[in-house]
Amino acid sequence: MPMSEAFKSRLFPVIRDIAAHYGTPFHIYDEAGIRETGEQLKKAFAGISGFREYFAVKALPNRSILRLMKEMGFGFDCSSIPELILAREVGAKPEEIMFTSNNTSPEEFAFAAQDGGCILNLDDVSLIDKVPEFPELICFRYNPGPRRTGNVIIGHPEEAKYGVTHEQVVDAYRRAQARGAKRFGLHTMVASNELDYTYMVETARMLLEISALVEQELGIRFEFLNIGGGFGIPYKPEQQPLDLAAMSREITDLFAAFNTEHGYAPAMVMESGRYITGPHGALVTTAINHKDTYRKYIGLDACMSSLMRPALYGSYHHIDVIGKENQPKSEIYDVVGSLCENNDKFAVQRELPAIVDGDIVVIHDSGAHGHAMGFQYNGRLRPKELLLHVDGGVELIRRAETLEDYFATYNFAPDTLVPKKA
Amino acid sequence: MPMSEAFKSRLFPVIRDIAAHYGTPFHIYDEAGIRETGEQLKKAFAGISGFREYFAVKALPNRSILRLMKEMGFGFDCSSIPELILAREVGAKPEEIMFTSNNTSPEEFAFAAQDGGCILNLDDVSLIDKVPEFPELICFRYNPGPRRTGNVIIGHPEEAKYGVTHEQVVDAYRRAQARGAKRFGLHTMVASNELDYTYMVETARMLLEISALVEQELGIRFEFLNIGGGFGIPYKPEQQPLDLAAMSREITDLFAAFNTEHGYAPAMVMESGRYITGPHGALVTTAINHKDTYRKYIGLDACMSSLMRPALYGSYHHIDVIGKENQPKSEIYDVVGSLCENNDKFAVQRELPAIVDGDIVVIHDSGAHGHAMGFQYNGRLRPKELLLHVDGGVELIRRAETLEDYFATYNFAPDTLVPKKA
Repeated sequence: MPMSEAFKSRLFPVIRDIAAHYGTPFHIYDEAGIRETGEQLKKAFAGISGFREYFAVKALPNRSILRLMKEMGFGFDCSSIPELILAREVGAKPEEIMFTSNNTSPEEFAFAAQDGGCILNLDDVSLIDKVPEFPELICFRYNPGPRRTGNVIIGHPEEAKYGVTHEQVVDAYRRAQARGAKRFGLHTMVASNELDYTYMVETARMLLEISALVEQELGIRFEFLNIGGGFGIPYKPEQQPLDLAAMSREITDLFAAFNTEHGYAPAMVMESGRYITGPHGALVTTAINHKDTYRKYIGLDACMSSLMRPALYGSYHHIDVIGKENQPKSEIYDVVGSLCENNDKFAVQRELPAIVDGDIVVIHDSGAHGHAMGFQYNGRLRPKELLLHVDGGVELIRRAETLEDYFATYNFAPDTLVPKKA
Repeated sequence: MPMSEAFKSRLFPVIRDIAAHYGTPFHIYDEAGIRETGEQLKKAFAGISGFREYFAVKALPNRSILRLMKEMGFGFDCSSIPELILAREVGAKPEEIMFTSNNTSPEEFAFAAQDGGCILNLDDVSLIDKVPEFPELICFRYNPGPRRTGNVIIGHPEEAKYGVTHEQVVDAYRRAQARGAKRFGLHTMVASNELDYTYMVETARMLLEISALVEQELGIRFEFLNIGGGFGIPYKPEQQPLDLAAMSREITDLFAAFNTEHGYAPAMVMESGRYITGPHGALVTTAINHKDTYRKYIGLDACMSSLMRPALYGSYHHIDVIGKENQPKSEIYDVVGSLCENNDKFAVQRELPAIVDGDIVVIHDSGAHGHAMGFQYNGRLRPKELLLHVDGGVELIRRAETLEDYFATYNFAPDTLVPKKA
């Protein structure tokens, strides 16, 4: 299951009308699907007191999408100033924002402290002394290093730039206490697009163990454990979705057992991005060219400025051709964009029905790390974003980039310097 | 040789003053070095009548840089509307612009035809009928397919989306003649960052052979052959630069031999990008953090939004630390940015002198595909660009992106639709 049948049934019958009105290419997001997944997540973890999802803004940093998250009671995982602005704009309160930055600058610490601050999630012990006014509530990112093997996408934790080591973690909280911290959280993030739920269960177990260790050493009882994001989605039709029911049951059991043993349990939070919005977005494009050379190519009116994952990672994104969903897949195509970069291909040697110029081509699962990762390389501009509301109405939620945007950074006052030699 | 000693001698003594005035991070480009390389190229190929370089705009699409190219008598290789605008803005005449697009849209053909048009380089036979008003001068991109093995970076030509096949090439020109074309060029591009000059010689030989074949079949005498770009630069200190002297001598000999045999020879053009500007740019940043975990990390105030090549391709970019050029390389660091993406690393396990917060760190060879490939993922903004003039003065040639730029695409009139079912 890439796009759900429900999303298809909402989008496909009206897609030509939407394309005619707004023009292709565009990303369209499915409010109903996003809400459904969000509610499933809340329900699945309802057995853990104080559970909260902090949506990872970087996956789909659109104000209208973030408003949906706020309405569902979610917080926000931010790691830059623009992401903090977005979260605050939709009304997130200080403790509804986790600021999980790394290599954090003084400007970022200052910005994070504005408007009542947010939950600071420190990436390193060296940052303890760099926080200008140390907050009462503090969190550290834990990196298990060789104690975990990492999942396929995120690699080996000991090669990752993130977090404090196992050997540093107790001292990190001790130093935070010395700077006045009184409330504590613990965070890790060791997976990306993981479809094996047991990996997330092991992550929860790991954090519970570290929290017990820190309590034993420092007497700290954690308010929350943040198991991070990384819940995967099945991009390929033959892949099985993450077993949310089994995962939540086993993690809930771990927290209950911890409670029995320790007489309390922290809340649990997570920072999903891809899982909540990924399958509920689609890139809608038009076939504008075809060529028959050493391979057969279909050229779209979108390119990797709209969706970089296939070009960047060789990722699979499922493709439908409107009106031809049930036709035999009689052709083998490379489906390409117009960027002057050979890996600007949405699909390589893909079996598809015969496509003609003018066909509407839908690229699935663009709801996370799609528009957000776009660039302007080769003068290619980023497309618009639309939201398909629960009532069936469609709303423009971001306009396409224009030439004016492309040339904006030429607008400045002259600034020349005759440098002085050192 | 990454950055030349000459560039270092111009930049390093004044770099602190420049950094203090403009603030880091920034790319700075060396006018003297760019001009020197440009003149070397012209001189090297002066033996081929009508030789011209068409600078590949996508490598460094900055108006001020393009002005230097124009002053050196270069044309421009463009493949999008913004690139055509840039070339025309700096005064390029119609035949000083090659429009080498692929998967070309009707809007692009229309734009290319404005202002006296440009040299259309068609990527496919299917585009012949799509050119609204067929020009007198036409070029096709030739893809040798399995007849060439491709260089390491560009891969196998038969898997590339570009160009017309060997079997199609004669027919392509025949059909162009039928649409009224009277003047002809031939193009290919089968290398990227190639340091073995013989590969370029073989490319010239290949195009001469195809031109002879087309002349034999259709009586066409080509005005020019475009051997494309792809001249490499040595990113690593131990790499040998491309042997320009040997390359130009052997290619010039091939053209002379062709002239002897056929009684004429086409002009030769090429579309270098990286070769002309790559080594003459540097990303200047400040070390703002250091961490000592499973590895030692140095955090910079730039991230992959300034230079994606290391994160994207694992590319090597040489690094100097100002004031420590001659100190022993006693440390092994990962040099990282602040983006929430683990491969946001400028260097991995690199031997460097000990770096402290505040050190100015120079990342070499950012003059091509550096700023141009930047994105805004995770709310990270693209840095400014400076030009170090021949007279030693420094000029701001692009401002850094601002929050206003980041949020610009939220400025639009509401546009909602209640779609009609098909």
